[in-house]
Amino acid sequence: MKPKFEPKYQDYQAKVKKSFADQAVMKTIGASIKAIGAGEIEIEFPYQSSLTQQNGFIHAGIVSTVLDSACGYAAFSLMPEDASVLTIEFKINLLSPAKGDRFRGYGKVKKAGRTISVAEAELYAFSDQGRKLVATMVGTLMAINND
Amino acid sequence: MKPKFEPKYQDYQAKVKKSFADQAVMKTIGASIKAIGAGEIEIEFPYQSSLTQQNGFIHAGIVSTVLDSACGYAAFSLMPEDASVLTIEFKINLLSPAKGDRFRGYGKVKKAGRTISVAEAELYAFSDQGRKLVATMVGTLMAINND
Amino acid sequence: MKPKFEPKYQDYQAKVKKSFADQAVMKTIGASIKAIGAGEIEIEFPYQSSLTQQNGFIHAGIVSTVLDSACGYAAFSLMPEDASVLTIEFKINLLSPAKGDRFRGYGKVKKAGRTISVAEAELYAFSDQGRKLVATMVGTLMAINND
Amino acid sequence: MKPKFEPKYQDYQAKVKKSFADQAVMKTIGASIKAIGAGEIEIEFPYQSSLTQQNGFIHAGIVSTVLDSACGYAAFSLMPEDASVLTIEFKINLLSPAKGDRFRGYGKVKKAGRTISVAEAELYAFSDQGRKLVATMVGTLMAINND
Repeated sequence: MKPKFEPKYQDYQAKVKKSFADQAVMKTIGASIKAIGAGEIEIEFPYQSSLTQQNGFIHAGIVSTVLDSACGYAAFSLMPEDASVLTIEFKINLLSPAKGDRFRGYGKVKKAGRTISVAEAELYAFSDQGRKLVATMVGTLMAINND
Repeated sequence: MKPKFEPKYQDYQAKVKKSFADQAVMKTIGASIKAIGAGEIEIEFPYQSSLTQQNGFIHAGIVSTVLDSACGYAAFSLMPEDASVLTIEFKINLLSPAKGDRFRGYGKVKKAGRTISVAEAELYAFSDQGRKLVATMVGTLMAINND
Repeated sequence: MKPKFEPKYQDYQAKVKKSFADQAVMKTIGASIKAIGAGEIEIEFPYQSSLTQQNGFIHAGIVSTVLDSACGYAAFSLMPEDASVLTIEFKINLLSPAKGDRFRGYGKVKKAGRTISVAEAELYAFSDQGRKLVATMVGTLMAINND
Repeated sequence: MKPKFEPKYQDYQAKVKKSFADQAVMKTIGASIKAIGAGEIEIEFPYQSSLTQQNGFIHAGIVSTVLDSACGYAAFSLMPEDASVLTIEFKINLLSPAKGDRFRGYGKVKKAGRTISVAEAELYAFSDQGRKLVATMVGTLMAINND
């Protein structure tokens, strides 16, 4: 099967990993990249009581933090080597409480434009009871040319 | 001037403060309530390098965390005493980088329904250069009856 | 393969068709149902110059009209027999101009809740040049009990 | 009071009016411009049974059509003379049924950027019972340089 997207240069994964490593908030959340492809990424993080809302579940904003990075890096992976990425806006639907031992966000590009890209992401919770869909995001990203 | 909204019981501020204090993530962010009214709230937090994205600005997801709590508590302040609040969805537009010494989120209710409420929030950054609008959010909240 | 959703009663398709026929705007747009399943629907409409924006393409709001009905009826198909459906909110991303001879919207449910459902929809344009993705929508729907 | 926005050239109102007149769908809806300023616009339309959903109210998509044009033209009024405007995405919250004799949409710019602008719009219904807020929209618009 032909892959959906072609990266613009060979070493796009290194660029994504470097930028991700520069996001201090990812360390605070304990998030790490589990997989990168051209136009897609998986990011995982464990439950941490310091990130919870009033019922002890992960706060919707922390879910957003990981899914925004998932959308952003999925789009970034397809941008030219010297471009930066900027989130213009995103929308998230919270489908069930972020309750589990660990969580994985899956980001993938819907449309890769020269200036504007659109990406989608989903967060799943994992626990003894299996896997559950927690939230879906749609984000609009912009490529900033640094040359 | 007649206030826009009437709270459903006298001690709504105590209920909001208690729930906010139960959100561990607000401590992690260093966020505190600066003002509460019927259908509105102000939440402030300082710059922290542990919450940043790759350029050293506050991550859009952390901005979302504070504005989601701002929308949620603005709506919660108008709900019946025994109700809980749930975020169904929100959408955020990022208008300028979250760059500053401290940040303040302003949440207010647009429509308070029996089941569904809609709230809006804005985040401003404060620095030597003054005040700058960073982001705007629209959120949809649901009242859950606990009786 | 087990279907993803189970309808709550046998004759859900008739209920969807009746409500769709009651939407006068669907006649104005020339839209018709091409397929209905439990939690999904396809709606088609032809190009009409009376529905265009300033460049002669179908206006984004007309695209929204069809995709909102697609989200709404996908969700409605899974609701109890005596329920009504209400759109709480939706968000649409416009990926390419709505340029073509005919257009088809595909709506499907992402989560079917007792009160709140979330549905997604996509619009494709069809022309001599083939099929092109025009827009994606995420909508939040509410079941209103009429009993 | 200093106006919030400065137009980039004197005759921006004529440009907005011309583009609006080129939107055939506005004639179909019976919509007309009631006021234009730098970064803001008012658009009105009457009730028409041909634009209704299953309960006889104006369809949410038609509400979106008018509010999308309101956001778009508010943003367009501040763009350079030779630019075109494109809607990237919008989100609408439906606060009450679009029930009334006539409806007025108010669009205004929240942020006017070189490439990306953000605008907000509200629709009010007017009837014997007075004025009622029907819907709020946030839209993201892009300036396309035609030179």
